[in-house]
Amino acid sequence: MSDNIDFYFDYSSPYGYLASERIEALAKHHNRRVVWHPILLGFIFKISKQAPLTEAPLKGEYSIMDFARSSREHSIAYQHPQQFPIGAVAASRATLWVRNHSDSAISEKTGDMVHAIYQAYFVDGKDITDTKTLSALASSLGLDGDSMVVALSEQSVKDALKDEVGAAIESGIFGSPTMVVDGEQFWGHDRLEQLERWLTSGGW
Amino acid sequence: MSDNIDFYFDYSSPYGYLASERIEALAKHHNRRVVWHPILLGFIFKISKQAPLTEAPLKGEYSIMDFARSSREHSIAYQHPQQFPIGAVAASRATLWVRNHSDSAISEKTGDMVHAIYQAYFVDGKDITDTKTLSALASSLGLDGDSMVVALSEQSVKDALKDEVGAAIESGIFGSPTMVVDGEQFWGHDRLEQLERWLTSGGW
Repeated sequence: MSDNIDFYFDYSSPYGYLASERIEALAKHHNRRVVWHPILLGFIFKISKQAPLTEAPLKGEYSIMDFARSSREHSIAYQHPQQFPIGAVAASRATLWVRNHSDSAISEKTGDMVHAIYQAYFVDGKDITDTKTLSALASSLGLDGDSMVVALSEQSVKDALKDEVGAAIESGIFGSPTMVVDGEQFWGHDRLEQLERWLTSGGW
Repeated sequence: MSDNIDFYFDYSSPYGYLASERIEALAKHHNRRVVWHPILLGFIFKISKQAPLTEAPLKGEYSIMDFARSSREHSIAYQHPQQFPIGAVAASRATLWVRNHSDSAISEKTGDMVHAIYQAYFVDGKDITDTKTLSALASSLGLDGDSMVVALSEQSVKDALKDEVGAAIESGIFGSPTMVVDGEQFWGHDRLEQLERWLTSGGW
């Protein structure tokens, strides 16, 4: 048992964004620590034989309605991006560069970085596939955006993302967001309430 | 505006079964009436390009775990059927024969029939594709099981199911369970809480 909430998310995932805005308050309430795991659904979907929600007839229209309804329910700003979905490789590498940094003054900003990137995409309509965007976001948090962008093409950072996605698949992760507490897996923004009941009751 | 909760479900759907066990209490609490709509996901999935949950790698294993966890959470008996999924044509026609019956003493037993069929499949492991099973279930509710089974091959009953599925697709229904209140669509057993908040608050 750890006191972690492992939070798996794809930067292209509206429900991942919504859950990212709520998970820290939930974790704090239960004396847990959020560990951020950026993953690549495009890659995982090849294994799990899924497709982006919005591409399915009928389901797609419902989903776009539901992104907005669920964001309004929780008073979270949301603007469905014009470019959707997008490839989250650069944003995910940037996040791992921050999270895995040996300097804890940097790595402790992982959550801030996740929020900055998600909000840039789902609120401000920015292109988070562009390393200039990522650099500016990092700099706005007091990080060295230029060094970060250079690091994105280093093998160690590339490998970090490969390892992260590989480990997620090993753990049976197939969607975004997925939260894991004490080995128990919860998939979906709409499972935060169930996760909360699980943490409160100790499970059932 | 009507005072209905339109409840769309497939007899092969574990989440449809779980929600069917909870929807009437929720409806009663909000002075609403449940209208039961059996649908055929096998047919709808061809349009919406989906596949049964349990057939997807990774997602399948999670789903089977989650059926059990969600049933325990709500103290609903659940035994994952050995034959899964199954074709729900006969069970759906039987339900529509009851629901659409001109004798209100029969049609008012629709909810009982839905529960009897779902429990036969998801609790007692019975073969609900077998008209003998359906006949016995109807008879146990005081209905004429033999007449019902004869009616299942009548054109009017076949057409009733075709119309039901067609109308569901027209309304954008793509999954089970789906609840519709006042034109607002909620998909999934895990959306009952959101539906409840919607009914309590009048929407947002």
